[in-house]
Amino acid sequence: MPRALTAGDREHARSLDAQDPLRDRAGEFLAAPPGLIYLDGNSLGRPPQAARRMLQAAVDEGWASDLIRAWSRGWYEAPARVGDQIAALIGAGPGEVLVCDSTSVNLFKLTLAALQHQDGRTTVVSDDLNFPSDLYILQACCRLLGGRHRLTRVPSPDGIHGDEAALRAALDEHTALLTLSHVAFKSGYLYDAPALTAAAHDAGALVLWDLSHSAGALPIALEAWGVDLAVGCTYKYLNGGPGAPAFLYVRRELQERLLSPIWGWFGQRAPFAFELDYAPAQGLARFLVGSPPILSLTALEGALQPLAAAGLEAVRRKSIDLTTYLIALADAQLAPLGFTLGSPRQAARRGSHVSLRHPDGYRITQALIEQMNVLPDFREPDNLRLGLAPLYTSFEEVWEAVDRIRRVVIEGRHLQLSAARRAVT
Amino acid sequence: MPRALTAGDREHARSLDAQDPLRDRAGEFLAAPPGLIYLDGNSLGRPPQAARRMLQAAVDEGWASDLIRAWSRGWYEAPARVGDQIAALIGAGPGEVLVCDSTSVNLFKLTLAALQHQDGRTTVVSDDLNFPSDLYILQACCRLLGGRHRLTRVPSPDGIHGDEAALRAALDEHTALLTLSHVAFKSGYLYDAPALTAAAHDAGALVLWDLSHSAGALPIALEAWGVDLAVGCTYKYLNGGPGAPAFLYVRRELQERLLSPIWGWFGQRAPFAFELDYAPAQGLARFLVGSPPILSLTALEGALQPLAAAGLEAVRRKSIDLTTYLIALADAQLAPLGFTLGSPRQAARRGSHVSLRHPDGYRITQALIEQMNVLPDFREPDNLRLGLAPLYTSFEEVWEAVDRIRRVVIEGRHLQLSAARRAVT
Repeated sequence: MPRALTAGDREHARSLDAQDPLRDRAGEFLAAPPGLIYLDGNSLGRPPQAARRMLQAAVDEGWASDLIRAWSRGWYEAPARVGDQIAALIGAGPGEVLVCDSTSVNLFKLTLAALQHQDGRTTVVSDDLNFPSDLYILQACCRLLGGRHRLTRVPSPDGIHGDEAALRAALDEHTALLTLSHVAFKSGYLYDAPALTAAAHDAGALVLWDLSHSAGALPIALEAWGVDLAVGCTYKYLNGGPGAPAFLYVRRELQERLLSPIWGWFGQRAPFAFELDYAPAQGLARFLVGSPPILSLTALEGALQPLAAAGLEAVRRKSIDLTTYLIALADAQLAPLGFTLGSPRQAARRGSHVSLRHPDGYRITQALIEQMNVLPDFREPDNLRLGLAPLYTSFEEVWEAVDRIRRVVIEGRHLQLSAARRAVT
Repeated sequence: MPRALTAGDREHARSLDAQDPLRDRAGEFLAAPPGLIYLDGNSLGRPPQAARRMLQAAVDEGWASDLIRAWSRGWYEAPARVGDQIAALIGAGPGEVLVCDSTSVNLFKLTLAALQHQDGRTTVVSDDLNFPSDLYILQACCRLLGGRHRLTRVPSPDGIHGDEAALRAALDEHTALLTLSHVAFKSGYLYDAPALTAAAHDAGALVLWDLSHSAGALPIALEAWGVDLAVGCTYKYLNGGPGAPAFLYVRRELQERLLSPIWGWFGQRAPFAFELDYAPAQGLARFLVGSPPILSLTALEGALQPLAAAGLEAVRRKSIDLTTYLIALADAQLAPLGFTLGSPRQAARRGSHVSLRHPDGYRITQALIEQMNVLPDFREPDNLRLGLAPLYTSFEEVWEAVDRIRRVVIEGRHLQLSAARRAVT
């Protein structure tokens, strides 16, 4: 159905909600406090009711009653089982995704495995829009391998868009690995993953995508794109809960050729034989390390239900509508107040969050949180980052959020706050 | 009060329970199924009610209502806060323990950090009673560092006792690190940690203890013993829940001199400045990597309450009583049926689990689980491993368990089961 995603009044926003095929999905989440507008689902997704339900059963039936037997009644297979559920959301096949550890630990394992596989190639190519923690892990991997490896960090021309031409130009016969965030954490820039994957392969490099800001927000086709490796976190658009375990993907054909650098008992050929020498498990399981945090993992398993039911095509359609509508409102209401767009204007190049830049961005964020019952987040130096989660963010909330931002600035509420920076998550 | 920890009848067991100062602590745990005798608290501790309570609040108040703000209301500090709570249970100071990742990942981080610090020393000394996964991690670390490092694995003379004289003899000017399980996972052998720590220091080596099977079961004094490094899991006697995050300890004086090999954003100097180059956080925080699994971590925080209230001196007294009593019963009732003791007879050399060996150990274990409502576990090749958790295991349960084991063998119940091995956790 055609929609007028233009700035308008609250009634217009309500009419957009009335046409939204996902409008009832919000009911599958635990209620947020009344009046709160939550625009940080790209940082911590809200809790689906199924997550709470499954978590409670894991305690009352699993931990308390089945006790140790629960390991053989589903816990032991949970990293692979929930991995398969995530695989279905990112275009991977069964047995290609595991849920385990944190995104950083997974990136560490896959990067070292890739660099050791790519013997003789010594460059890792990334860019400065990548999540800084990913860059730290790449730096750590280069250091651990003895100093022969180098990280090339391609700059963004404007801090908003990735420079895909420069990235292609940086690929050569020395490139072991190209690794980028699929959607940039600050600007929301969405890379052309299939094209960059092909370019890397042309140069003989492996490719690793960090899907933290895209998984659950848009359709991803790892197998179809020929992606070698991927990692991602599960507590953003996958709604897995705070610090929920992350995932890793290894293309099936590569699984037997790569070796994890961290040899844990869940990655051993026969964990319960208690052999004294390590031998890697067949297939992807070799990338497991220790016992997975079952309670967090169970909440994640429940959390995936609304997303799987809605389907990512529908999620992406609404995501584009929400961000397009937000930008239209920002152009009309906020640009006159000094805001500029910190995200790509082209919908096809944008994930599901939008950054609005303002010289007083930090204090405006604080005023929204403390006085206006809006939860965005702030990213240095001046980004008000607004995450729009299609499963539970409504058009009316977007309208209302922009109105509250407008009122903060017009009423000068932020000017009464200290300009001191402090950590915000 | 003096107790006769001799084999006797059920009434005798009840009189021991009546004298037990910890007898009411079991009420602080969620009920187990009626009639079940759970002897696997050394593998998965039962759920304290406080764990369930705090977990529910973390979902309903934290995740659902505070949402992203919950990070600055306690979640962000949770690895250090819960680390301090564990520090109090293992004789470490505030700021010396963190809860994060799995035991294996923590062992990987600390081992690599230690080996890189001990420049020029190339041997890691351990033994073959160490948990195999720890040996795998040590093997992985040696491999990653390019092949100069070697793991020396001192054999046990009987598979039950560690060979402490041979361990001392293996320490020399090439030794970078001595690392052992404080209590051996199979036999329950308890090492003389202060003496071995001193011996390693005499040789110029660092020491790393894996406390997985001792933390929460006996008093530990890491600072007083001068221990450099330690790791441990939290789901055994700490009752943290399935796969609960593990802990790591670094002696204060070493913290600024060691560098983690995995550079994550929680270990960065200023995580929310999003600097593009890694700089380690001051102190222990540099050993954090990614976002901690808050739900699992919160359950652990609640789970520590009964243990902290009971105190480890009382826990250890009861633990020795329980294991001594079990061995007396086994000598009287089970030795005539072909069982031998797979654990040290000397209480001071024993943790809180006892292994009973029998040629048909695997099938006896299966019969106990399937027909007798007893949950022990089995460890290759012939160990019926019985974990006695002083907070909730009663003397009458020990008596009843031995009686049910006796009945399985006398009635030949195990002989009707297939001898095929399968994985048990």
